[in-house]
Amino acid sequence: MRRTVDWADGAVVIIDQVALPGAYRTLELRTVDELVDAIQRLAVRGAPALGAAGALGVALAAFAGGSDGAVRAEAERLATARPTAVNLRWGVTRALGKLGGGPEAVLTEALAMLDEDEHLNRTASGHAADVVLRETTRRPLRLLSHCNAGHLATVAWGTALGVVWHLHERGLVESVLVDETRPLLQGSRLTAWELAQAGVPYRVQPDSAAALAMSRGLVDCVLVGADRIAANGDVANKIGTYGLAIAAAHHGVPFVVVAPESTVDASIASGADIEIEERRPSELTEFGGVRIAPEDAEAFNPAFDVTPAALVTAVVTENGVRTPQPMS
Amino acid sequence: MRRTVDWADGAVVIIDQVALPGAYRTLELRTVDELVDAIQRLAVRGAPALGAAGALGVALAAFAGGSDGAVRAEAERLATARPTAVNLRWGVTRALGKLGGGPEAVLTEALAMLDEDEHLNRTASGHAADVVLRETTRRPLRLLSHCNAGHLATVAWGTALGVVWHLHERGLVESVLVDETRPLLQGSRLTAWELAQAGVPYRVQPDSAAALAMSRGLVDCVLVGADRIAANGDVANKIGTYGLAIAAAHHGVPFVVVAPESTVDASIASGADIEIEERRPSELTEFGGVRIAPEDAEAFNPAFDVTPAALVTAVVTENGVRTPQPMS
Repeated sequence: MRRTVDWADGAVVIIDQVALPGAYRTLELRTVDELVDAIQRLAVRGAPALGAAGALGVALAAFAGGSDGAVRAEAERLATARPTAVNLRWGVTRALGKLGGGPEAVLTEALAMLDEDEHLNRTASGHAADVVLRETTRRPLRLLSHCNAGHLATVAWGTALGVVWHLHERGLVESVLVDETRPLLQGSRLTAWELAQAGVPYRVQPDSAAALAMSRGLVDCVLVGADRIAANGDVANKIGTYGLAIAAAHHGVPFVVVAPESTVDASIASGADIEIEERRPSELTEFGGVRIAPEDAEAFNPAFDVTPAALVTAVVTENGVRTPQPMS
Repeated sequence: MRRTVDWADGAVVIIDQVALPGAYRTLELRTVDELVDAIQRLAVRGAPALGAAGALGVALAAFAGGSDGAVRAEAERLATARPTAVNLRWGVTRALGKLGGGPEAVLTEALAMLDEDEHLNRTASGHAADVVLRETTRRPLRLLSHCNAGHLATVAWGTALGVVWHLHERGLVESVLVDETRPLLQGSRLTAWELAQAGVPYRVQPDSAAALAMSRGLVDCVLVGADRIAANGDVANKIGTYGLAIAAAHHGVPFVVVAPESTVDASIASGADIEIEERRPSELTEFGGVRIAPEDAEAFNPAFDVTPAALVTAVVTENGVRTPQPMS
């Protein structure tokens, strides 16, 4: 599969995640405006993929030929395009650090970050696969996935789904229960698509069926990614992750978070300080242009929630299992 | 508002719940076939409404003029049209008990059940409103509702939403968070519509946002209905109720179940013995004819789950708070 985010002929090239699973196509984004729009429409999404997109966006801005100040202003627009995933600002900041070397230096740094991404994800998910095998006894495994933390959420390979790929290569995966992940259905649209491509058996379920599945003993381990991890180990991730973690703890099901170290925000003491993006009501009140709620219905539509470290079996990065670091 | 289920000119007349909230219209059902189809399509749904529909369906069969054996066979088809809500068989059985008196006797009994329904629901939800006021301190209240347990789930008034009507009449409701209730969106389509009609402020939310809302202190009490209550107090209700109850217990939020006594199945010792209906995958993999998951995606689509009595603050019926009865 091609990279989720890449660079070609002066453009950022992304797999259009709004079109999946109906169509597999790419978009060429030639301006920061186009990239910000793609980020806000979720044509590119997933914390590690946003980091890569942000870095390449700085290259777009640098090649556009404005002053350093103009490039920095564009970079700030990119960094704030979505508020919760810390990787976006991380990617922008790292690429911006090479601005003194000119546009080519920025691009070289961004492309290096893309190269690193797959390696980091393979390493982190390999460590996490070891954790899963240590925390579970049944073979083959029945895993549960929320949102999409796969190839499409990264440059390549994936984080939580990367664990599935590692275990599937070893014949250790029986099936994956895929939370559809309302409102934008990243589970049924993207994760299911990736699992189908890889030939891993799966079933889509309503997000609200996860607790029943656990009570029936159908889930050996829950695997999720992360959008921001606080110093104390609290995890911001797609809305629903927190309820899933409470249910997993209630049933004694291991709950494993997989993310690159760039998702850790050491400047944030606990999850209480993480900004949670609220998205527009129409994501809930309409579907494909058809209203599914009364006219003028209001909505509570937070895109993320925060899972306290106490409910997480392990946060795993490329460095292995993370030990929470209380702020000094 | 007209009754959700009624009888007119030899037909069962229902509010078409598939058409809401886009259109408010009624359907006239003149045969058991049409009624079974409406039940299975969820054009009429909700445990108490199904009880009424089942009873009227026996009248339809009786007026059709077949032998008693033929009527009993039709009644059995009605009773098994959906497996989880015990009220359906209860309504069918009670109406069938008058078959010896002829079709008019059956209809008279069914219409008596319709008359009773609103009275029982008003009484049960009044008792439940007292429980809510006893279990909470904040005024006015922020309530959370799952699925639809309102007027549309009964002949009139509602069960869990009936509590909202009682409290709203007394000026004690600030707002209601409405779980959209995937896959069939009874929350955003039906509960939101009822709240809008009644002028009660509400917000629709993804089912998976309930735990976050609780963690932010936005929920003073959870109110749900029931499809079958076992002797020990375990509650079968719409998928997602169980996860909601786990989250409520985790946050110390009261969790109140409201249902008529006809929802209690004394023949069932515990929730483990309740049959859970699994519905077709396309409810999850398609929306309005558009695929939202890969071709050939499989699905886990249980329509209900079981909440253990230990997670329920109170089960309230027209007789007041129920004390679980272990099987002798």
